[in-house]
Amino acid sequence: MKNIFGNSITVTLFGESHGPQIGAVIDGLAPGLEVDLDFIRKQLELRKPHGKISTGRVETDEPHIVSGVFEGKTTGAPLCILFENSNIKSKDYSKTKNLIRPGHADYTAMEKYHGFADYRGGGHFSGRITTPLVAVGAILIKALQKKGIYIGSHIQKCGAIEDRQFIDYESDIKKVNELIFPVLDEEIAEKMHHYMLGVAGEGDSVGGVLETVVIGMPTGVGEPWFDTVESILAHALFSVPAVKGVEFGDGFGFADMKGSEANDAFEIKDGTIVTKTNHNGGINGGITNGMPLRFRTVVKPTPSIYKKQETVNVETMENAVLQIEGRHDPAIVHRARVVVDSMTAIVLADLLAVRFGTDWL
Amino acid sequence: MKNIFGNSITVTLFGESHGPQIGAVIDGLAPGLEVDLDFIRKQLELRKPHGKISTGRVETDEPHIVSGVFEGKTTGAPLCILFENSNIKSKDYSKTKNLIRPGHADYTAMEKYHGFADYRGGGHFSGRITTPLVAVGAILIKALQKKGIYIGSHIQKCGAIEDRQFIDYESDIKKVNELIFPVLDEEIAEKMHHYMLGVAGEGDSVGGVLETVVIGMPTGVGEPWFDTVESILAHALFSVPAVKGVEFGDGFGFADMKGSEANDAFEIKDGTIVTKTNHNGGINGGITNGMPLRFRTVVKPTPSIYKKQETVNVETMENAVLQIEGRHDPAIVHRARVVVDSMTAIVLADLLAVRFGTDWL
Amino acid sequence: MKNIFGNSITVTLFGESHGPQIGAVIDGLAPGLEVDLDFIRKQLELRKPHGKISTGRVETDEPHIVSGVFEGKTTGAPLCILFENSNIKSKDYSKTKNLIRPGHADYTAMEKYHGFADYRGGGHFSGRITTPLVAVGAILIKALQKKGIYIGSHIQKCGAIEDRQFIDYESDIKKVNELIFPVLDEEIAEKMHHYMLGVAGEGDSVGGVLETVVIGMPTGVGEPWFDTVESILAHALFSVPAVKGVEFGDGFGFADMKGSEANDAFEIKDGTIVTKTNHNGGINGGITNGMPLRFRTVVKPTPSIYKKQETVNVETMENAVLQIEGRHDPAIVHRARVVVDSMTAIVLADLLAVRFGTDWL
Amino acid sequence: MKNIFGNSITVTLFGESHGPQIGAVIDGLAPGLEVDLDFIRKQLELRKPHGKISTGRVETDEPHIVSGVFEGKTTGAPLCILFENSNIKSKDYSKTKNLIRPGHADYTAMEKYHGFADYRGGGHFSGRITTPLVAVGAILIKALQKKGIYIGSHIQKCGAIEDRQFIDYESDIKKVNELIFPVLDEEIAEKMHHYMLGVAGEGDSVGGVLETVVIGMPTGVGEPWFDTVESILAHALFSVPAVKGVEFGDGFGFADMKGSEANDAFEIKDGTIVTKTNHNGGINGGITNGMPLRFRTVVKPTPSIYKKQETVNVETMENAVLQIEGRHDPAIVHRARVVVDSMTAIVLADLLAVRFGTDWL
Repeated sequence: MKNIFGNSITVTLFGESHGPQIGAVIDGLAPGLEVDLDFIRKQLELRKPHGKISTGRVETDEPHIVSGVFEGKTTGAPLCILFENSNIKSKDYSKTKNLIRPGHADYTAMEKYHGFADYRGGGHFSGRITTPLVAVGAILIKALQKKGIYIGSHIQKCGAIEDRQFIDYESDIKKVNELIFPVLDEEIAEKMHHYMLGVAGEGDSVGGVLETVVIGMPTGVGEPWFDTVESILAHALFSVPAVKGVEFGDGFGFADMKGSEANDAFEIKDGTIVTKTNHNGGINGGITNGMPLRFRTVVKPTPSIYKKQETVNVETMENAVLQIEGRHDPAIVHRARVVVDSMTAIVLADLLAVRFGTDWL
Repeated sequence: MKNIFGNSITVTLFGESHGPQIGAVIDGLAPGLEVDLDFIRKQLELRKPHGKISTGRVETDEPHIVSGVFEGKTTGAPLCILFENSNIKSKDYSKTKNLIRPGHADYTAMEKYHGFADYRGGGHFSGRITTPLVAVGAILIKALQKKGIYIGSHIQKCGAIEDRQFIDYESDIKKVNELIFPVLDEEIAEKMHHYMLGVAGEGDSVGGVLETVVIGMPTGVGEPWFDTVESILAHALFSVPAVKGVEFGDGFGFADMKGSEANDAFEIKDGTIVTKTNHNGGINGGITNGMPLRFRTVVKPTPSIYKKQETVNVETMENAVLQIEGRHDPAIVHRARVVVDSMTAIVLADLLAVRFGTDWL
Repeated sequence: MKNIFGNSITVTLFGESHGPQIGAVIDGLAPGLEVDLDFIRKQLELRKPHGKISTGRVETDEPHIVSGVFEGKTTGAPLCILFENSNIKSKDYSKTKNLIRPGHADYTAMEKYHGFADYRGGGHFSGRITTPLVAVGAILIKALQKKGIYIGSHIQKCGAIEDRQFIDYESDIKKVNELIFPVLDEEIAEKMHHYMLGVAGEGDSVGGVLETVVIGMPTGVGEPWFDTVESILAHALFSVPAVKGVEFGDGFGFADMKGSEANDAFEIKDGTIVTKTNHNGGINGGITNGMPLRFRTVVKPTPSIYKKQETVNVETMENAVLQIEGRHDPAIVHRARVVVDSMTAIVLADLLAVRFGTDWL
Repeated sequence: MKNIFGNSITVTLFGESHGPQIGAVIDGLAPGLEVDLDFIRKQLELRKPHGKISTGRVETDEPHIVSGVFEGKTTGAPLCILFENSNIKSKDYSKTKNLIRPGHADYTAMEKYHGFADYRGGGHFSGRITTPLVAVGAILIKALQKKGIYIGSHIQKCGAIEDRQFIDYESDIKKVNELIFPVLDEEIAEKMHHYMLGVAGEGDSVGGVLETVVIGMPTGVGEPWFDTVESILAHALFSVPAVKGVEFGDGFGFADMKGSEANDAFEIKDGTIVTKTNHNGGINGGITNGMPLRFRTVVKPTPSIYKKQETVNVETMENAVLQIEGRHDPAIVHRARVVVDSMTAIVLADLLAVRFGTDWL
């Protein structure tokens, strides 16, 4: 029960939105993995706010690796990566310190930590803390790619607007990984962006669904009980702030299907066993079957909105009205994309390290 | 990475569909908990096949507790519970041994275990193995009830048919926990049952969605990163066979909502902070906020169907046609209900033991 | 914090001295390992009481494997092994139920479990519970031997009597593994046995030191911090009842040595790097260096003695005198040997599975 | 299997001897604990080299806490503490890069990490990495003291010289915690110091034995199997560099004792059950019995010596002679003392948090 994740490869997160530094320690990395700072910076760029659908708080996000790397490669010892928090406006929050923000962790943090939590900007609960996750994810994304494993996610749905499906997985993954606003169809991308701007203009925010595919995963990874691939991935994905649902393959669509529609028939193709369809998202009985992994993650609308909201003043214990100022994101689903990809990489690298040994990657 | 779950309270599962015995070990139980064999049997009854929408394989499911209980109460030492497998017809499977069943774990088990898995009746992957889970869950459900924490689930949806929502949580939970076929609205129950029978008649099977609510959970339980309440619950729920999606509160519905609709306003009620709505399902920032937990779990259609299916003969490595015989469930969503409730109890008891100490319950 | 041990290979223990059955679940075993019941029985024989230096309680100790084995080989799924408790004389204990036995866990069990523990025969704390440990250890000892890794232990010291050191490790390991009373020098064996009988005649008991060597371990196993090989082995060994000290290589002898005496010089031998001496017991910096592992474990005198002892009656909370009846061991160091070997095998197999993957063995 | 330790309270270590920063993350701390930087600095002072029996490398060791503390108190979120490495002379090592140092981790690091480890100054294996351990230990030592739990250690033995035993535990603990050179008897302290200087003059080094006592621990903490108090403490202590042996109570002395001498008789004292003697070091059956914990840890002689040593050049794979330059400690047993105390505090705080809940401290 802790802020640590993984079995053979383990990630420890620390930091607060308005503290001096945030960071992560990743342990169990195979020695000799290339640490490409430019690729880390590129992945961090995908997480950064861009344009009017994001917060005005822009951090430089320059990664400082203080351990576990020697002469450009992982040593095998724990890798600690740090980021400075520079662009902080703490006074934004002081006014509303006692007004717990609806949809946020203010109240639960207060209850869990008996009033000792750092409340500024959401403290340890802030989406800011995903920055080091993206950085360590980048190292593993690169390592997995060298093994032929590629991860890609797009905004499959936002409001009533839906993107097209992944068609050619390999080229679509490459395409989407270059996009700051990860939508496969360009016209849809524009519509979605326009919709987000409109809602932002109302002082409100939107949610959305991310769809992720992974190609190249070996068969036979995962456990039948408790540590199924779905269990481990969901565990990781549900710890991304604002994620409230995860489904694999046809997911909630299975409720309307029959067994004859849901089962994926097997066939021989090029001497290998494959499935004709992939309703089960590449996982049978909790174990990878060699087909692409396919899952969807729903991101709730950003709780920080400019509209007036009813709440409670925890000092006076009276009902109150809150109008949040500060700088906020009317949409985070596009920024959450690279966090989802990073968590996915962390999970898959760990599953592979458990199965094939700590040197596998 | 293992067939073990939990932090302070830990469950280890073992057994195969056609082995002599199956069971579970639960460690970390507080000493002095009442072990009510009649309540365990009652819970097991909810898992058992009943009528024509279930398999003809009916086991007596008599629990044998061989450790951890003394004079009717838990001792605090690991509790091992065993069940005999008596009603086995292994010959049913031998014919089709090399024909991997679509939607099942046959192929992935073969790949993971290099051909050494016990393939009979799904082996360790069988839904049969949920029997001891229900038994240990029963002990914890009872213990949680003594602390005022109640869990209830109904079939919210099957095909196009939807049950009514929970209204009065307390009485609806009590009601549904008495029902073998857990549907709140009696007319809907009949329709669903009729629909299942129809599909069964076609030699096919159905899926469905279970909705679960929990009342009485204290505030402040869970962790901000990795071990959020959603993460831990999803981890557990995704290890229930056939579960392919989990959502909390409004879940995938959040994609269509705005922040002003998704946020749950706070107010003072009877001197306590509560939320006016519960879109977030009782969890903010991964931590319980004192409101009822609310989540939905989708169960895919049972993969064992009587219709002919395309597959591969793994011995000859040729395409083949499979017609499954044996005894199977055209629907398992109603039987999965008590498994979901049991996993929920295991998770919540563990979360509480971590927070309040091993003697808490 | 639990009755579970291991990372990739995990052992869960359950059962009480006077319960119906005791057992273990071992998870994470590679599929396809041979399960040789005769070898398991042979190892169990080494744990059984023999002659007058042991208790009169002799169990048949017939292993019942109820899961995880199919057609004589491990399947990769959790393996559960059960033993019946048949030779129970519970009335022996009832008289002295409230008189906590010095040196035993009676008082601490009472405090930890608030009076709910099964007190009969030590309950879950009984040395009886090592039976399933020896059985699962036997499976791993066999598997390690197939990889060229051999474990052997002898009674290095009992009272003032000391056995000779291991000389030719390979043949001495083979020799000692065939001995019920594991002493390398036959004359010393007789002396030790005679000494034990003498102390038994006084109604008293003896302790002793076991020395273990392991040959064939690959280099590079273990972690620099927290999970050093010494840490993991000591963790396991200190959970063997009555073990109160563990030392590696020259151990406590290092206090009297200088660096120039303690360091093991390296040299090339047959193209490989080896050390000229082995003061560090095959471990540098917590990691195996390819030399034989060498460690010593001290077993305290069996606390059950026939002499009168001062104690407390926990019901009346008055000082009292206790004279233990029942059947007890005047010495357990020789029986503890196979438990130490089994724990060692469990640890080493797990370390190797973590490093080289779950299929390694 | 990782560089992480603990259950409810978890410590992650990172850094290398010659990297820019080293540090630790401690997760699971109760919120509201006082973080007294002066006390942390005082504890760090006990670890620092002083005088001629220690290395000339003196770091400022100023702690930088970058998360988990707000307004002087722990928040409950992970606390990350960083230290700069400033006083680095990396050129000292470059000459002898290919000459693996006897008694060090050079060779095993090379084998484990396939040549990618940071070899400078021992890299991640360096005793330097204990600095953040001492800092996080200081926070817990303070917290435990507020609960009446006090830890103290002295050099019980170095070469042939032995310190007196702890007599009045409370005052002796207080006394020793103020001493840079932790020896209870002042004359003995001088003798030991003199002995160390003599050996240092020969270009050699010494080992020693630390004896630790803990008063105030509640009864009933620990587990019967695997996670006994001895197991967890030994696990932690054996990960302190140079520790090669750990014994509890009379430890290896038990080999010469009889049961009647080894058992600690119970009696009532001031209405409480206590033992008349404490041969078992405060632990029965792996569980605390309320008496003082008592254990001894042996620290081997520092492997860095100035005398010429035989070794291997791993590049040329030829035998070679090594003469180490650089700055080294002829003795570390006195500096190891506060590391042992810190690890003890970490273990005990975790055990208590598991038993009494995460808010207990």
